[in-house]
Amino acid sequence: MDKKMEHSLLKNTIESTKSVFNMMAGIDVKGEDIIIFNKDGVKGDVTGIIGLSNDHIKGSMAITFPEELGKEVVANMLAIAPEDISEEELKDGLGEITNMVAGDLNNRIGNIFKLSLPSVITGKDHLVSLTHNDTPIVFKFFALDKPFHLLATFEEQK
Amino acid sequence: MDKKMEHSLLKNTIESTKSVFNMMAGIDVKGEDIIIFNKDGVKGDVTGIIGLSNDHIKGSMAITFPEELGKEVVANMLAIAPEDISEEELKDGLGEITNMVAGDLNNRIGNIFKLSLPSVITGKDHLVSLTHNDTPIVFKFFALDKPFHLLATFEEQK
Repeated sequence: MDKKMEHSLLKNTIESTKSVFNMMAGIDVKGEDIIIFNKDGVKGDVTGIIGLSNDHIKGSMAITFPEELGKEVVANMLAIAPEDISEEELKDGLGEITNMVAGDLNNRIGNIFKLSLPSVITGKDHLVSLTHNDTPIVFKFFALDKPFHLLATFEEQK
Repeated sequence: MDKKMEHSLLKNTIESTKSVFNMMAGIDVKGEDIIIFNKDGVKGDVTGIIGLSNDHIKGSMAITFPEELGKEVVANMLAIAPEDISEEELKDGLGEITNMVAGDLNNRIGNIFKLSLPSVITGKDHLVSLTHNDTPIVFKFFALDKPFHLLATFEEQK
């Protein structure tokens, strides 16, 4: 992928994350300068995953949280207390926020991708890895002063 | 989605699973008649997830195994012993088999979808849920006499 496209995808992924968390949950996301190049994946307790693709580029994106923060983010979205969130609400909320970040990114870059339906994984300390021939990009963000990760990979099809 | 399309997607998902496991790992998949309609998701230890989408339909697919069976399947693919498989080989193998089942399904139905890059989740007993307004379909299959699950969801966009 050319450097300009790659830079645009990275920059807009950050913008979309900040914008969606702010609009949907009233949460200020920080840490946009922390990019980790990580082949091994990252661990989390609750994860939303979505695919993005078109004729030329295949991609995927995952947002993974520690359980407490995942619940707090969804609680803020729903305007209820974290301890009142059901499993169902947590999973729906994670799917929704993942869908919105990917959708917002897609809007910013001219709706070039088709998005898949999001999937949600829950389970203490699972490892999330995205397929990539090169090295997937992992953003370490902070919400409510707690870290979470966004993994993104976009690969040009030969 | 019309019933004919839905039926074709289900039937070909089964065919693709059987065909890919047979070709790639020499494994006979059984249990194609066991379809569970399950809103709550299913648990597994190692999971491959992929998105499928086009202008009209958004979909996703996940294949989740107990760890032992996941390793056996990948071991068969690589023609090595299950105990010799590295974490890296396991993750790559799961991504590959998920990609191949979705790709084979896409071929069978006329390449109507764009596929995303597969993601891989590892972690004892995580819960895999696919977003769906209705009820996602879960196939319970058997490989080497052990059960594994394939989740699929395809949703028409209004």
